[in-house]
Amino acid sequence: MTERVVLAYSGGLDTSVAIGWIAEETGAEVVAVAIDCGQGGEDLETIRQRAIDCGAVEAVVADAKDEFATDFCLPALRANALYMDRYPLVSALSRPLIVKHLANAAQYHNATMVAHGCTGKGNDQVRFEAGLAALAPGLRVLAPVRDSGMTRDKAIAFAAEKGLPIDVTKKSPYSIDQNLWGRAVETGFLEDIWNGPIEDVYSYTSDPAVPREADELVLTFEAGVPTAIDGKELTPLQIIEELNRRAGEQGVGRIDMVEDRLVGIKSREVYEAPGAIALIAAHQELENVTVERELARFKRTVDQRWGELVYDGLWFSPLKEALDGFIDQANRHVSGEVRLVLHGGRAVVTGRRSPSALYDYQLATYDTGDTYDQTLAKGFVDIWSMPAKIAAERDRRQG
Amino acid sequence: MTERVVLAYSGGLDTSVAIGWIAEETGAEVVAVAIDCGQGGEDLETIRQRAIDCGAVEAVVADAKDEFATDFCLPALRANALYMDRYPLVSALSRPLIVKHLANAAQYHNATMVAHGCTGKGNDQVRFEAGLAALAPGLRVLAPVRDSGMTRDKAIAFAAEKGLPIDVTKKSPYSIDQNLWGRAVETGFLEDIWNGPIEDVYSYTSDPAVPREADELVLTFEAGVPTAIDGKELTPLQIIEELNRRAGEQGVGRIDMVEDRLVGIKSREVYEAPGAIALIAAHQELENVTVERELARFKRTVDQRWGELVYDGLWFSPLKEALDGFIDQANRHVSGEVRLVLHGGRAVVTGRRSPSALYDYQLATYDTGDTYDQTLAKGFVDIWSMPAKIAAERDRRQG
Amino acid sequence: MTERVVLAYSGGLDTSVAIGWIAEETGAEVVAVAIDCGQGGEDLETIRQRAIDCGAVEAVVADAKDEFATDFCLPALRANALYMDRYPLVSALSRPLIVKHLANAAQYHNATMVAHGCTGKGNDQVRFEAGLAALAPGLRVLAPVRDSGMTRDKAIAFAAEKGLPIDVTKKSPYSIDQNLWGRAVETGFLEDIWNGPIEDVYSYTSDPAVPREADELVLTFEAGVPTAIDGKELTPLQIIEELNRRAGEQGVGRIDMVEDRLVGIKSREVYEAPGAIALIAAHQELENVTVERELARFKRTVDQRWGELVYDGLWFSPLKEALDGFIDQANRHVSGEVRLVLHGGRAVVTGRRSPSALYDYQLATYDTGDTYDQTLAKGFVDIWSMPAKIAAERDRRQG
Amino acid sequence: MTERVVLAYSGGLDTSVAIGWIAEETGAEVVAVAIDCGQGGEDLETIRQRAIDCGAVEAVVADAKDEFATDFCLPALRANALYMDRYPLVSALSRPLIVKHLANAAQYHNATMVAHGCTGKGNDQVRFEAGLAALAPGLRVLAPVRDSGMTRDKAIAFAAEKGLPIDVTKKSPYSIDQNLWGRAVETGFLEDIWNGPIEDVYSYTSDPAVPREADELVLTFEAGVPTAIDGKELTPLQIIEELNRRAGEQGVGRIDMVEDRLVGIKSREVYEAPGAIALIAAHQELENVTVERELARFKRTVDQRWGELVYDGLWFSPLKEALDGFIDQANRHVSGEVRLVLHGGRAVVTGRRSPSALYDYQLATYDTGDTYDQTLAKGFVDIWSMPAKIAAERDRRQG
Repeated sequence: MTERVVLAYSGGLDTSVAIGWIAEETGAEVVAVAIDCGQGGEDLETIRQRAIDCGAVEAVVADAKDEFATDFCLPALRANALYMDRYPLVSALSRPLIVKHLANAAQYHNATMVAHGCTGKGNDQVRFEAGLAALAPGLRVLAPVRDSGMTRDKAIAFAAEKGLPIDVTKKSPYSIDQNLWGRAVETGFLEDIWNGPIEDVYSYTSDPAVPREADELVLTFEAGVPTAIDGKELTPLQIIEELNRRAGEQGVGRIDMVEDRLVGIKSREVYEAPGAIALIAAHQELENVTVERELARFKRTVDQRWGELVYDGLWFSPLKEALDGFIDQANRHVSGEVRLVLHGGRAVVTGRRSPSALYDYQLATYDTGDTYDQTLAKGFVDIWSMPAKIAAERDRRQG
Repeated sequence: MTERVVLAYSGGLDTSVAIGWIAEETGAEVVAVAIDCGQGGEDLETIRQRAIDCGAVEAVVADAKDEFATDFCLPALRANALYMDRYPLVSALSRPLIVKHLANAAQYHNATMVAHGCTGKGNDQVRFEAGLAALAPGLRVLAPVRDSGMTRDKAIAFAAEKGLPIDVTKKSPYSIDQNLWGRAVETGFLEDIWNGPIEDVYSYTSDPAVPREADELVLTFEAGVPTAIDGKELTPLQIIEELNRRAGEQGVGRIDMVEDRLVGIKSREVYEAPGAIALIAAHQELENVTVERELARFKRTVDQRWGELVYDGLWFSPLKEALDGFIDQANRHVSGEVRLVLHGGRAVVTGRRSPSALYDYQLATYDTGDTYDQTLAKGFVDIWSMPAKIAAERDRRQG
Repeated sequence: MTERVVLAYSGGLDTSVAIGWIAEETGAEVVAVAIDCGQGGEDLETIRQRAIDCGAVEAVVADAKDEFATDFCLPALRANALYMDRYPLVSALSRPLIVKHLANAAQYHNATMVAHGCTGKGNDQVRFEAGLAALAPGLRVLAPVRDSGMTRDKAIAFAAEKGLPIDVTKKSPYSIDQNLWGRAVETGFLEDIWNGPIEDVYSYTSDPAVPREADELVLTFEAGVPTAIDGKELTPLQIIEELNRRAGEQGVGRIDMVEDRLVGIKSREVYEAPGAIALIAAHQELENVTVERELARFKRTVDQRWGELVYDGLWFSPLKEALDGFIDQANRHVSGEVRLVLHGGRAVVTGRRSPSALYDYQLATYDTGDTYDQTLAKGFVDIWSMPAKIAAERDRRQG
Repeated sequence: MTERVVLAYSGGLDTSVAIGWIAEETGAEVVAVAIDCGQGGEDLETIRQRAIDCGAVEAVVADAKDEFATDFCLPALRANALYMDRYPLVSALSRPLIVKHLANAAQYHNATMVAHGCTGKGNDQVRFEAGLAALAPGLRVLAPVRDSGMTRDKAIAFAAEKGLPIDVTKKSPYSIDQNLWGRAVETGFLEDIWNGPIEDVYSYTSDPAVPREADELVLTFEAGVPTAIDGKELTPLQIIEELNRRAGEQGVGRIDMVEDRLVGIKSREVYEAPGAIALIAAHQELENVTVERELARFKRTVDQRWGELVYDGLWFSPLKEALDGFIDQANRHVSGEVRLVLHGGRAVVTGRRSPSALYDYQLATYDTGDTYDQTLAKGFVDIWSMPAKIAAERDRRQG
């Protein structure tokens, strides 16, 4: 029986050529798998047909937007996941989802190999292969772009030679990855890190510098999960989509940074993540209201490690599960409402209220009604500062 | 010989009344000490004279703006100090500076006591007393507002009775603390955390929502210290002042948050810190370019602890010194230029260049000239993902 | 109706006197509550009767040894809890258990107050009062030794005056707290930290320097919980008791340290915890075998914070719950057997085996059968060391 | 001109064969470099001559014991470096020292390549190559055992064929690496992790189970550096050697563990490090006496990361330098004396005294002379427990 390869298929030049390239290289049949994580663009049926036209024996397409929203974006939100305090893990979140579907397809189609189109200097190869190592360790991984010299020039030549139904002329000057949680752009002129991004780079967001009316909304959360906008209950997918649209119109969520890749280099990245940035701003402030101080302090360390781990491709790993154990517990009371103003590139919280608030007006107020017993303070301050005091006395004694 | 008290004097109602109050309560002579940390308002001579008029035997005033900029704001910048990822430690930075001057004045004037006007439910009492415990452990601390019932009503009555030269009528509806690094506002209507701030609350920043031209500048850093704007060398104080002005005009640096106080409660705080926020944005991005990945990752933990420690009043403490040992080392190569656009409430880095950059175009580029050896990737990925893979196999085996 | 106070009662001088002292001071009725956490000594009925004889209106005694073992000692074991890498939290674990029983008794007996016999310079007052604040915030706390001058001399005089049935003559030269998880000793001559402990200080452990035969046993764990010794299934309580006996006979678990108290001072402490130390040694090594590397590394940080938090009296706190969420997840696969040799004061693991081991002989061996693909190594090493390499090149360039 | 290779030479079979193997493979001249890090065994001149006899064009030997003690072992001591809380980094410390000498020799001898005899599944290849990447990035690295198939069998055949002066018959059943800081043993029968080590495995330590007299000594430290034993000033090297001897005679420092290698697998390791373990025990306890609480708590996190980083081969890295910045600062006051009893496999601190102690008898004592003001405690406890209390009230309210 002929061996089968499951290929992560995007519909673009590289993976379309890869169908035939892999078939020639391995003698195996290629099953193309395309997953909709909210990247937009062509419809799935068009992509499915192209895979067949390029020689795939089977082409599987799946709308995984709800799954992506619920099982991947929401955990990132509960972890306030911002790699290097900036990047909301757009691509890093979709790769494990795609891996899951690839592993399932491989089992279903009795494939012995799985293929991806990543290069050897990016993070995505790690995310694909680390995910596959965890979910489907028996499969051999093919990476034709990285390991068998399928350069862009060779891909174009291959497409022309085979008459593949791909328009190779309309090359974007940008290297782009996008999904429901955001959009990543890399490109030639941005590789000079002194160059600023130009408006043409952006697609999810309008120019924040253009004057327009502010947008205001109220987000409801239950246990760290957003459940409604302005009182209207929505699915996680719907909430992210609506916030992408509304925050995007206000220019929220543009990020321009030099980033530490797992594979050892620094790279320049431009991101747009209007919905993600707006949601994280709201979630963080609701945590400020509902999460106890020591828990909040330690959670920053946990959140940072969560972001690094997922960035580094280790979504399917024991540490990820244990961090989620912490984070889920910490989000139990992160319920309530946050009023958010979207305007001029900013997502600003202007109000918050919660039945599980730890903010207590009676304790906080300086007005009448104050229930805080200030006579406790002196004892607290003296004992709190005692270790540093004793150390300072020692330092003085020691000269 | 009559005992002496050194009083941290602001020129306002509470500390003006405290001069006579303390004198009556203790029989001691009061030496008033007023420190200019860039809070603006009245000139120092006016404040000095008022202290004398209110009964101080001596009144010492000092312009400590340069000292504050160099010795307190810059270390905070090198630590990217943002308590709860938001608050740049405005008041928390000035208190240890004031404490240092109080301790010096106490020694000079042979005082046996020192006094402050803090209440018992804020953080500043801790910062004063923990600092004094470290620098001048032999002094007794008086806190008349907290410990001997000097309420606002009693203060006003005292001022009227004694005919003190203080205008008690023009009471701000806001409780304000401000200095070179920013401004903090608390107030009655903001104690309802669902209420949004109104424009009247702000003083350091213009409304970011008003359309205006963007401002652009280039900041130069050497070893983590800002040294020039647009190529013009300036002192730290001058740089912070210019950025306060220019970033403030663009509405940069407004913060509205619920915050965890050290003294056990959550409080609502509104801050403005245009210069601080612009400088931290620039410094963080220059770190992204010049600091190695593992160092950058660990530095986030160090920076967080630095911010908590200073917030918690432990500026003069052994851990602070050791964290500074780490941070100074980490900033050795944080040199170069950052282009910053200030507009619409945002301080956005659009370019960065550095002779000590770790970003390497030759390694990062996808264009010709690429020197990254992609054949290394497979080995890296396989070994990197091996522990999670072995664990996943175990989990599958265990069912 | 007369108010009621629930008193944490030990049967000793201080708390026996406190019954009458509190009654006189408050006019309230005293309900004595004595909890057996495995401290040994007198039987509960004797203690109960003494409370009555000393004037308690009710005396409640409870054998909570099983509860203590399962709900307090085992979580500490899963966290490898060693404060300052040494102290297995003996007293810090029993206080929340006692607090729970006090809060329940207060509710049952309609008490409005609760009392403990702690001094003002130890950690236990914090553990009692922080626990009560969480479980029974409505109760007023009385601490007669700390707050109303019930010194030892006054207690002895009170006991004599009232004819209380307490032998005040047999005063131990040591201040001791002990329970199932270990024993803590403080004493006059040990307050000179240059003095070494003498044999007389110890009770749970024999002198490790005396020659004797080694003891060997096999401990079985399931998900981090010890379940059997030498194949014989036992309850957690039985396992701890047997290990206390067997490890104690071999002198295992003596600790002599200077410790950082929460209340600001350093103190000299001597502990004995034969069972705890033996169990932690076994559990740690089984974790080494069954927990994935990145999870194991982060768990050290979590374990450290768990130990600090519990030491600091915050057992009943949101951070504790979230840390437990992590730790429980991390212990899911900590199952298997550990062979332990107890001898000469050491508990040494000499063998471990587990169906959920991540140790893989085929990968680890240097003998035939090796399945590790060494050709992957070069790529891994080169990419792994790339960030440090690029930084070193920068440093050299910068001179 | 003929190219030159600098080879890390041990004098054993593998690296002796590597001289000729590399020469044949590359056509280059081989310069052998042997470094004495205290591994004992043959004298350096014998090793030097063997390298020449095996075909090296030059053979450089260096006694680096003092350098190793001062520049590598002492920093590890100040960091209390114990990987996985157990392993004092024996091999991980010597590799960067050897790398430094290799890089220097390569420069001196105009070599273009450097070679080591490591396999592809151990950590040492990473330590060699990461170190070389940092210190001598221009050199090409050869690893004949890993990359060009120089197996043991082939090495023996090569030695026989060439008549190399190596005795290939006396093969140890153990794979051993040893130096001043300790000794590491791996071996066939220990690869079954249920097997316990046998006495024959050990060389630096006597059997701790054999009854003998205890040994007692007083160690003096200055700023974290041991400077004298029983009042006699010694160099770091002399102190480590004397403690290796005296602690080794008492069976101190045996470690048997399953360990997480950087290269993705778990391995079984047996170590002996009598001097290291005794020194770390003493240093930790002196830190307990002289380091302030918050600094001590954070230092545990820093120490752990230091150990991981050095284990992982990143001695020459920016994070290492910054961690040292913290650790040096933290050790400034770690001065004083520690009395240590060595006996039965244990190194136990029984006394400590220090002019920079933060332990204060007057504060700690329960006897007369107590200066601790217990009236402060109530205020401290109430404010300390307030956040958890408010959270508990919320939880109860929420049900």
